[in-house]
Amino acid sequence: MPNMYTIPVPKLRAFVEKIFTGHGLSQEDAAIITDNLIDANCRGMDSHGVIRVENYINRLNNGGSDPNAEIKVIRETPVSALLDAGNGLGQIVSTKAARLCRKKAEEMGMAAVVMRNSNHYGTSAYYCEMMAQNDMIAFSCSNVEPLMAPPGATRVAVGTNPFSVVAPCGKYTEIATDMATSQVALGKVLNYRLLGKKLPGPFGIDEEGNTTDDPNKVKFLAPMGLHKGYGIAVIIDVLSAVLAGGAFGDDVNSQYGNVDKPNKLSHFFFCMKVDLFRDLADFNADMEKYYEFLHGISTVDGGHLIVPGEIETSSKKRTAAEGITITEELAKQLIEMAYGTVDKDIASYFE
Amino acid sequence: MPNMYTIPVPKLRAFVEKIFTGHGLSQEDAAIITDNLIDANCRGMDSHGVIRVENYINRLNNGGSDPNAEIKVIRETPVSALLDAGNGLGQIVSTKAARLCRKKAEEMGMAAVVMRNSNHYGTSAYYCEMMAQNDMIAFSCSNVEPLMAPPGATRVAVGTNPFSVVAPCGKYTEIATDMATSQVALGKVLNYRLLGKKLPGPFGIDEEGNTTDDPNKVKFLAPMGLHKGYGIAVIIDVLSAVLAGGAFGDDVNSQYGNVDKPNKLSHFFFCMKVDLFRDLADFNADMEKYYEFLHGISTVDGGHLIVPGEIETSSKKRTAAEGITITEELAKQLIEMAYGTVDKDIASYFE
Repeated sequence: MPNMYTIPVPKLRAFVEKIFTGHGLSQEDAAIITDNLIDANCRGMDSHGVIRVENYINRLNNGGSDPNAEIKVIRETPVSALLDAGNGLGQIVSTKAARLCRKKAEEMGMAAVVMRNSNHYGTSAYYCEMMAQNDMIAFSCSNVEPLMAPPGATRVAVGTNPFSVVAPCGKYTEIATDMATSQVALGKVLNYRLLGKKLPGPFGIDEEGNTTDDPNKVKFLAPMGLHKGYGIAVIIDVLSAVLAGGAFGDDVNSQYGNVDKPNKLSHFFFCMKVDLFRDLADFNADMEKYYEFLHGISTVDGGHLIVPGEIETSSKKRTAAEGITITEELAKQLIEMAYGTVDKDIASYFE
Repeated sequence: MPNMYTIPVPKLRAFVEKIFTGHGLSQEDAAIITDNLIDANCRGMDSHGVIRVENYINRLNNGGSDPNAEIKVIRETPVSALLDAGNGLGQIVSTKAARLCRKKAEEMGMAAVVMRNSNHYGTSAYYCEMMAQNDMIAFSCSNVEPLMAPPGATRVAVGTNPFSVVAPCGKYTEIATDMATSQVALGKVLNYRLLGKKLPGPFGIDEEGNTTDDPNKVKFLAPMGLHKGYGIAVIIDVLSAVLAGGAFGDDVNSQYGNVDKPNKLSHFFFCMKVDLFRDLADFNADMEKYYEFLHGISTVDGGHLIVPGEIETSSKKRTAAEGITITEELAKQLIEMAYGTVDKDIASYFE
């Protein structure tokens, strides 16, 4: 096991903000992207948390993303906007897009905002929570470069296009889903390969276009639910990229593979007030009953069924109290980005 | 092979309308539900086509659905409505809800309508096409009674809640998805059981809550993509049932199991104009390029990747020219519902 460091949330937040302001971001923008990354760690999605700082800094340093991007409004109505993100960091421009969407929905009851020329936007649920604020239902999705092959295909066709829906849930805070449209992440396939174990289902596509559960034979990621997830990923391409007039197919660049090129991603944001349909209190009362119906279903291991969003909500409470735990390797990486070198005890940097 | 009868679409349409008007529906309502069922056959979804007439008639005869249902507007704004379907047949009340949603979106740019106290609404894509009409993007979903167990669960938790998205696609008509949130239909599991073959993946849940590919061990249907499809089905429960103030969990009745009881389903409808964001011509031009990108991907069998909606669009063209093919058993069933008995050559009824 590597050495681990548990850092209080405000300390880690200040540290990461410093890294970003040190690489050309305004204080406001540094606070926005940091909040997004810290939030991912807090909800237990470490893969989308501060471990990504290095890539974003890399992209800023190599011209892949623009630290001074200006968002342009291309078309606007009271219920909608098309925005050009000007190649800004995805978290920053998406936060501004989600705020605009919420503002329009407050006025009009519902609104949608699409955005092109952006970069990887991180956890989709972050923007949904920002829009939902316990009185709206929110949806967001984003395209990414083609990474999945539907069964039978000889090459990748669609991205692992993530999406999220968040709805208020009374005393249980929210019901929230946030998922990529692949069945499993590439990291998971590599992990099964290392362990010498089969995947828990036919979740990869081999070089002959067949589904496979052998991690050594996986050439492409398979969509979740195979042709069904392919259909969902296509719809996300349409709602984000095509509707925004953004890049799609092979014109989308890789977040990691092309750190010197605009990622050219597009995003979709939507929210609507619950009280368009029902009084919020009545909705929340029924949401609590629905939550309890699911939560009350027992599982064969003697536990109970997990409600979507339950793990993240309890992870947020825990990390707020206890802090975020990162590996020594990641701690060193962050220190180097902030100070150029590590020249004293690692823990002392975060005190 | 059973005897098959291929019937021109207008002939089958007139025949089915006659069945429904003979069982208490107005001419207008009979035309609506018939159009929905015929459309399902035309798009190749025979499971949701005229084979269902018997169940709907059964429900009307046994008090499960009300042939004289009046839709009540419970709450309304320029962008939204909450409707009570009064236990009408799902296809009829949903068509009226989708028309209202489209009308509001024409005025406001986008709109959402939710509806409770309805019954099985058939193919979701039908309402999306009705709303989309080649200049909007439309979404619809519906809850159904709990039929799926997430991995580990000891009982069913969520329905096979279907949803659809339809977007205009220039000369290719549309890109459309329409799916249940289960990985496979129950009929398919039974079919694999008869054939003595394994399922193509761990698409069922056995009595110990484990995923299984053995059709003989399948106790519950598994959600598509396992926990991912569970999350999607939950969101659909929220968007339809909870948002509409309708029934959820064990308060939802079975379409087939309880023909004497209201099904108590809820539906969600949404559509928005493409030109909120882009000129329709520009959108269509990019949609055609996106369609061609997917369609241009070759498959290992020497074919090409199927674009979502492609099969249905070409099936519609074919059936319009050639007619709809049904089995002798179904033809007899329809004749009996129309005339009480079959007393002449089957084909002659459809001439």
